[in-house]
Amino acid sequence: MNTKDTLLLMLPDDMQPHAFREELLSLDASLHVVLDTEPHDPAEVGFIVGWRRPEGGWGHYPNLRAVHSFGAGVDTLLQGGDWPNSLPLARLVDEEMADLMAEYVLTAALMLKRRFLEYAQAKGGWNWGDDWPLPGRRVGILGMGHLGQATATLLEKVGFQVHGWGRSEKVRGGFPCSHGMEGLGAFLGQSDFLVSLLPDTPDTTGLLNRDRLRQLPSGAVLVNAGRGSVLVEDDLLALLDEGHLSGACLDVFQTEPLPAEHPFVSHPKVLVTPHIASLTPVGSVAPKILENYQRALQGRPLHNQVDPAVGY
Amino acid sequence: MNTKDTLLLMLPDDMQPHAFREELLSLDASLHVVLDTEPHDPAEVGFIVGWRRPEGGWGHYPNLRAVHSFGAGVDTLLQGGDWPNSLPLARLVDEEMADLMAEYVLTAALMLKRRFLEYAQAKGGWNWGDDWPLPGRRVGILGMGHLGQATATLLEKVGFQVHGWGRSEKVRGGFPCSHGMEGLGAFLGQSDFLVSLLPDTPDTTGLLNRDRLRQLPSGAVLVNAGRGSVLVEDDLLALLDEGHLSGACLDVFQTEPLPAEHPFVSHPKVLVTPHIASLTPVGSVAPKILENYQRALQGRPLHNQVDPAVGY
Repeated sequence: MNTKDTLLLMLPDDMQPHAFREELLSLDASLHVVLDTEPHDPAEVGFIVGWRRPEGGWGHYPNLRAVHSFGAGVDTLLQGGDWPNSLPLARLVDEEMADLMAEYVLTAALMLKRRFLEYAQAKGGWNWGDDWPLPGRRVGILGMGHLGQATATLLEKVGFQVHGWGRSEKVRGGFPCSHGMEGLGAFLGQSDFLVSLLPDTPDTTGLLNRDRLRQLPSGAVLVNAGRGSVLVEDDLLALLDEGHLSGACLDVFQTEPLPAEHPFVSHPKVLVTPHIASLTPVGSVAPKILENYQRALQGRPLHNQVDPAVGY
Repeated sequence: MNTKDTLLLMLPDDMQPHAFREELLSLDASLHVVLDTEPHDPAEVGFIVGWRRPEGGWGHYPNLRAVHSFGAGVDTLLQGGDWPNSLPLARLVDEEMADLMAEYVLTAALMLKRRFLEYAQAKGGWNWGDDWPLPGRRVGILGMGHLGQATATLLEKVGFQVHGWGRSEKVRGGFPCSHGMEGLGAFLGQSDFLVSLLPDTPDTTGLLNRDRLRQLPSGAVLVNAGRGSVLVEDDLLALLDEGHLSGACLDVFQTEPLPAEHPFVSHPKVLVTPHIASLTPVGSVAPKILENYQRALQGRPLHNQVDPAVGY
């Protein structure tokens, strides 16, 4: 193997870089895998598996053939605006990740529907609430890609009425779908449970603002497990406090980790989870990333290659 | 109609006795329905829809033809030990009630599996925990009657591995089942999620004690949505504090409403819900209770008639 084909893992500790290296080496013991915390020569790095743009920028690695996100999104890799036009970038599409995401959304929707967040916080109370359980079974999913379709399938199984919204008019796994900005209002008006799985792109930033959240039915709830940039956080707080929305379960935020003094943290109608809706299962994704590494070496297109201009 | 055929509703306010009377009268305007809070002649009461044994005992109503529980259980009606041998007693078996129960158990199981109770309580923390998500997908359901089978069906749909346990060797909706005290140990040993839907009977009192809860796998969780008498509450607390069990979601208790000073209320591993796993939907059950009223007048056996000696 060419020494210029070093596989560099730029992953924080909580993404288990050591365990992931073990997985890769168990598939191919001849690989040269280094962690970014270990000494290495940037000129020998041919492939990066990463989560964030390197501090020195992409130009720091003159012989880089491709970059692979360690998650479903690529927004944090594209930050900085210096993505080299010719550098292939791939994201993860994985059944286990989709199953985890679908399970998270189901847990959040059921918890809000059955008012378990109120019970968890109002310990010692013995009140059924005025409006029990939460009315409505209509779930609207923003973002009907791989994760969205897996989520829709699971929620439909347990009796929710699922519809979706996507940017373009693609077929979305057989679920009724709206598309484009012109379809968004009607979609929101029929979503007792609004689930956002949207990626962070120029088009999605601030999409869920006051005007749009107001289009949800009175008493609706929000589950955001896509990206924090999609939601205008102050607008959600205002609509919760005004009583138009009755709850939210949020896994992603404008700033992560969420600062302890953020209003979400102490808000009785908000459940904060620490970006755990879906984690990357090292065993399941190692063969996929290895295959894309080999494709990069051969100069072939990657599986699940991203258009950096669109952001997914 | 004979004035002795008054239909008496002995229901607390939170069971919506006024709304239930409206439902009954909308089905048959000729009915004579009184609430126990209204003046009435005990000698004219022919049928009672109730939730608790009347303070004066059943002998207070000399012309009573039958009693109908307003829930799936009859234990609170049988309390006092003075049930007249010849008095028919029926319980409610209703699809909507079963759906609510199944949804409650699914919500509880997912919430514990995905550690949402910890997130709800540890607001501001940004930790994934040591062991995330909760390992295991094996759900053991104690009590495989109508509610148990509905619960098993729903949980299996979303990927849990369900098995059941019942007192006798009846067929249980196609799910693998153990039975009898001799089958209980092996059943418990394979239940990462133990769900009790057992009624309160002489046989079930204190069934879930320290010895039996210890037979659950390490890290297992308990969901009790049957009756509080089944669980030895101090034994559960000890096993949670020793770390053998990792959580519990409890809807029923030895004493209800649960006193605010009860250790469950402030325990970080326990979610208390106020006996809301399943509520009696007045619209759905009114025709069933009306039919049993008419059967009682005709001296015919009731639907879902209970054997008072067994307790279900």
